[in-house]
Amino acid sequence: MMTEERDDLIVGRNPVLEVLRSNMQISRILVAEGKKEGSINAIIAIAKKNNVLVKEVSRAKLDGIISEKNHQGVLAFISPIRYVEVDEILDYAKQLNEPPLIVILDGIEDVHNLGAIGRTALAVGAHGIIIPKHRAAPITPTAMKASAGALMHIKVSMVTNISKTIDYLKTKGMWSVGTHQDAKDIYYKSDLTGPMAVIIGSEGKGMGHLVSTKCDFTVNIPMKGSINSLNASVSAAIILYEVAKQRAEKRESIND
Amino acid sequence: MMTEERDDLIVGRNPVLEVLRSNMQISRILVAEGKKEGSINAIIAIAKKNNVLVKEVSRAKLDGIISEKNHQGVLAFISPIRYVEVDEILDYAKQLNEPPLIVILDGIEDVHNLGAIGRTALAVGAHGIIIPKHRAAPITPTAMKASAGALMHIKVSMVTNISKTIDYLKTKGMWSVGTHQDAKDIYYKSDLTGPMAVIIGSEGKGMGHLVSTKCDFTVNIPMKGSINSLNASVSAAIILYEVAKQRAEKRESIND
Repeated sequence: MMTEERDDLIVGRNPVLEVLRSNMQISRILVAEGKKEGSINAIIAIAKKNNVLVKEVSRAKLDGIISEKNHQGVLAFISPIRYVEVDEILDYAKQLNEPPLIVILDGIEDVHNLGAIGRTALAVGAHGIIIPKHRAAPITPTAMKASAGALMHIKVSMVTNISKTIDYLKTKGMWSVGTHQDAKDIYYKSDLTGPMAVIIGSEGKGMGHLVSTKCDFTVNIPMKGSINSLNASVSAAIILYEVAKQRAEKRESIND
Repeated sequence: MMTEERDDLIVGRNPVLEVLRSNMQISRILVAEGKKEGSINAIIAIAKKNNVLVKEVSRAKLDGIISEKNHQGVLAFISPIRYVEVDEILDYAKQLNEPPLIVILDGIEDVHNLGAIGRTALAVGAHGIIIPKHRAAPITPTAMKASAGALMHIKVSMVTNISKTIDYLKTKGMWSVGTHQDAKDIYYKSDLTGPMAVIIGSEGKGMGHLVSTKCDFTVNIPMKGSINSLNASVSAAIILYEVAKQRAEKRESIND
């Protein structure tokens, strides 16, 4: 996956420092493990101040990402989008006078899924997407391409802690719904018309335990055969289109 | 994509001849362009008899697929599944006493989409999938993996001509439904409870023109924003889950 992102790499100490001081968006910085010298420490300090994720990796890993060995122990990934604060998503819904609809991705690692979900989220009129800073794919150019550009047009927020974000959204009057195989209610029999955060678990493991305990309710997507889970972008589509349908029907019944 | 399939390559004249004479499933055979000698002609003849796709490609292309140059102008792709006849899918639905539900993929080229759709198709209880022999991804090991094994458990038929297959299904009393942006009816306002072939167009171009004229009706999936199409596996999921829902509700109302 890394190789697909090479066009967006900034490599070496001075280039990374420069980009950190510019207006360019950085999704994360990788630094080599071991003793840190002068400018690397400066990079880490500025990154921390700017809330940019810094990850320590082995030199071998850096060598693997960039074939020239002139990385000087540091490289940065440029982000194709500007991430927004969660409040900006809420404000946007308010501005449209719509109950907020937010898609929370709890650890989606596949950029193709990320792209497909971005496209669906925009298509149903979701106001934004929230992704975690750690253990999840950031918005890469490949994700952007897989979204057919949709990720350029929807607000995306990157947060440190998904559970705390759900708590915060609750204080703003939002409900959070997740999918679970054992949930009693089928998704289309649940009322999804309110201010709603739809939580989509990761491809392999579903929602994290703490996150799942934060859900106000869970719904199940019926599955036959030997199937016990769907592709993450498929689950997201089923729930988001059900929300869109219920909201459309509610509007129609009000207008009647 | 080819590199992902290398584990499944049979390379060289005698190996390909042997596998053609065995029970192993072959998804297609590539032969080098130009003058054909003895055993290559035998391979082409047996393949034709067994209804296996043979494609002529440049020697450079063969060299690119397999790094050793000992391919002798021929290689075969082993299929992880046994393809079935369309009638076997119809018979299976009959056996379950269910109105047939078949997913027709009109040129899906992305094996990840193919896998995700296979998983969804099995989850909603579709009786089979139909894919075209040409200009579409066959069931590769990567597609199998992306389906989380689902493609092992659902019947898949590979046909030469999708349009003719739709005509055939009509003679068997089936309806064919496609999605189209300009369709008048929203998918959830259309009756999808009958014997149904759901046609999913390719990622880039949607349904082919001839195929789209064969649809008994088309439905639209509402989209907001700048979006005018969804990921193919997402469109498939929305329609297939709507079919499943309508069928479940119909059964419930009969049992009431």
